[in-house]
Amino acid sequence: MGALHNLISIHDLTRDEIDLILQRAAEMEEIAVTRSKLLNGRIMACLFFEPSTRTRLSFESAMLRLGGSVLGFADVGVSSAGGKGETLADTIRTVERYADVIVMRHPLDGSARVAAEFSNRPVINAGSGAEEHPTQALLDLYSIQKMKGTIDGLNISLCGDLKYGRTVHSLAMALIEYDVKITLAAPEQLQMKPSIIQVMKEAGLTVVEVDNIDDAINEADVVYMTRIQKERFPDIREYDAVRGRFRLKREDVEQMPDDAIILHPLPRVDELDPEIDSLPQARYFDQVEAGVVTRMAILDLILN
Amino acid sequence: MGALHNLISIHDLTRDEIDLILQRAAEMEEIAVTRSKLLNGRIMACLFFEPSTRTRLSFESAMLRLGGSVLGFADVGVSSAGGKGETLADTIRTVERYADVIVMRHPLDGSARVAAEFSNRPVINAGSGAEEHPTQALLDLYSIQKMKGTIDGLNISLCGDLKYGRTVHSLAMALIEYDVKITLAAPEQLQMKPSIIQVMKEAGLTVVEVDNIDDAINEADVVYMTRIQKERFPDIREYDAVRGRFRLKREDVEQMPDDAIILHPLPRVDELDPEIDSLPQARYFDQVEAGVVTRMAILDLILN
Amino acid sequence: MGALHNLISIHDLTRDEIDLILQRAAEMEEIAVTRSKLLNGRIMACLFFEPSTRTRLSFESAMLRLGGSVLGFADVGVSSAGGKGETLADTIRTVERYADVIVMRHPLDGSARVAAEFSNRPVINAGSGAEEHPTQALLDLYSIQKMKGTIDGLNISLCGDLKYGRTVHSLAMALIEYDVKITLAAPEQLQMKPSIIQVMKEAGLTVVEVDNIDDAINEADVVYMTRIQKERFPDIREYDAVRGRFRLKREDVEQMPDDAIILHPLPRVDELDPEIDSLPQARYFDQVEAGVVTRMAILDLILN
Repeated sequence: MGALHNLISIHDLTRDEIDLILQRAAEMEEIAVTRSKLLNGRIMACLFFEPSTRTRLSFESAMLRLGGSVLGFADVGVSSAGGKGETLADTIRTVERYADVIVMRHPLDGSARVAAEFSNRPVINAGSGAEEHPTQALLDLYSIQKMKGTIDGLNISLCGDLKYGRTVHSLAMALIEYDVKITLAAPEQLQMKPSIIQVMKEAGLTVVEVDNIDDAINEADVVYMTRIQKERFPDIREYDAVRGRFRLKREDVEQMPDDAIILHPLPRVDELDPEIDSLPQARYFDQVEAGVVTRMAILDLILN
Repeated sequence: MGALHNLISIHDLTRDEIDLILQRAAEMEEIAVTRSKLLNGRIMACLFFEPSTRTRLSFESAMLRLGGSVLGFADVGVSSAGGKGETLADTIRTVERYADVIVMRHPLDGSARVAAEFSNRPVINAGSGAEEHPTQALLDLYSIQKMKGTIDGLNISLCGDLKYGRTVHSLAMALIEYDVKITLAAPEQLQMKPSIIQVMKEAGLTVVEVDNIDDAINEADVVYMTRIQKERFPDIREYDAVRGRFRLKREDVEQMPDDAIILHPLPRVDELDPEIDSLPQARYFDQVEAGVVTRMAILDLILN
Repeated sequence: MGALHNLISIHDLTRDEIDLILQRAAEMEEIAVTRSKLLNGRIMACLFFEPSTRTRLSFESAMLRLGGSVLGFADVGVSSAGGKGETLADTIRTVERYADVIVMRHPLDGSARVAAEFSNRPVINAGSGAEEHPTQALLDLYSIQKMKGTIDGLNISLCGDLKYGRTVHSLAMALIEYDVKITLAAPEQLQMKPSIIQVMKEAGLTVVEVDNIDDAINEADVVYMTRIQKERFPDIREYDAVRGRFRLKREDVEQMPDDAIILHPLPRVDELDPEIDSLPQARYFDQVEAGVVTRMAILDLILN
């Protein structure tokens, strides 16, 4: 068994465990290029009850770079495992006989923890329900640490849909382990839940709430953008108004310091103007690569 | 060429060949854990004309544990190989150029044999039509042998849908090679075909037919349960009545000897009460693992 | 970086580069059987925006025979990369962080070149729009060279749908590098575009146009057949008439010299009578195998 067993929620990790993962991720940078045999012979199953090519490929790429192999899973929603009325418990108790580690995504809150309870093999939560996406939070932390050299002491702005985005919930919960100032920039309809803000404040973080993006990027070291989904707005005019206020444009970014960074879990729609892609602050595609090394670290710590 | 060429029907195998496969499966137990390079460089194609994530993953896991690799097949029903009006013969003659062995599932009886005739590479039948599922029969035999120490001399009850289930047809045909007493427990609408019972009796087996599960588990060493599908019953009340009579409950199992075993090809719906999962007789998830080593043995015997 | 970087269009290749690929393909014949570790640790992503199991499996088989591995891509049309309104540029800039080479198929003309412009990793065009399918053209050239010993000096007939088939467009453009006589045999509705014929003539090729298959196979060293799709004909009777005239039957082939060869990109419908499959001229399934070694050569030249 590795240094970690399951990875279900960012809440389960101590600061020491987070530090261990980020440190191992840094060591994976070189292995990601040279490749290795660290997980030679190990098998990863991807059990995705909702589609996410991006997250699945990131895990697969991580596993392959470590010399492991991957069971060729179709998305499970339409397949017979998980179909024919089978319970999640039965699916898990079957798949654990095929693989050494299960990477699972599921639309329901709590599903990953249920899976871990029924599994004798480690389970990694690749997104469950509206709240948990711990590997995304860890890769976001690693991106910040790698690009800024540190996390403590930074001004970090979380922008866009702070109500429904599980990415930003997991990241907020990870950041309470650090000494940071948080600016929350969301339209009125999509603000962060008071309970999460409460937890952040109780952890000693300075938290400021604003309703536009200009106030969020002024002094930010890190601007973390998220997609605002049209479906959240019953009235399309309301959506259009909000969208305009939460779009990063070239003139916005040019006013930011050169060493500020813009992150985004991707895919974006139009909240990041493509014109900013070539600016030094735009680091969201580097963040994709940081995701691979972070997942390499997680797989290695769990399986080795 | 290995000790086997194709594996199309359980009828094609002599008792000696079955013994060879079961013995090799036992040897694979250790390799399944340590992994090996026995099939290093070999490529397996999965050609599934009807979906079966479970069977496909079992084969993939077996191949990966032996160091081989797997072509990343989507289910073929909706893909271009096998689509655009192409014949099965053409699909096979194409896929055999990509892989060293073809694992095929197809809804039509006889399809696997047709495939084998057109292929210069070995073909393994992973389920065809209503009658053949030879690797399931072999893993069932291996499960019994492993868990009971022997097959000869046992009382084996086959329960549930004995009319349509190809699993139970293949298993019945495999058991004629052994000296066993068979109890067939099925509702009137889902009884085993007389022609199969005839073959079993001619082979010298004692065969008893009952219409409820209580009479099937009394003296059984092995209870092999199968799913009763609602679609078989035009009248839902009839289904509900039958379902009640063919459900294994905790009080049933507690009356069985501790060393009796309950198997099931999975997935189950409600014919096995989850309350029995923790009882010592419940071995259907161990059977999943027995499936991986049995398929390792088959792949090894065919390719090495 | 290898001897090639991207492979987007057959137009981009000089005769020297084509010769290099065909020569490397010949060297791959042995490696295709023995397997190798030439691309050990390298990762290939298949980004298929339209389904093509055949082409995808050919690339995957090539990569696996060279010891590389493959990201388990579902077709992208329905997945989240490429979905949720994401641009092709963003999908490419994400996937290039997961893999060492991107094999892409896309319904739009020019898409592969756009992808290559945004990618820091090599991109291989596995079919784009109506015109480009360069790896098919190269495997066709390699098939001819392997089976006939040479390409220069041959009489080559291209038959069937010469208007819409991207395969035959790419092959025609590849053949302008050679000294060949081309016969174009197509029904009136499906003739090769005058602009392509013009390019062929300007390159010094002899080009003859006929409207039936008999005139195309008389003196041909190579008969390259393609599928005529029913959907191209508003009037079904018109389709039936054309289909009859563009079908290779046993009596046709028996009049061809024994060392003439019949190729087809597959899948076929009924333009090649199955009765000819056993004749010595029928080489379209050998062409499938030639496709694997050609793609091995391309992957090796790009990645090594």
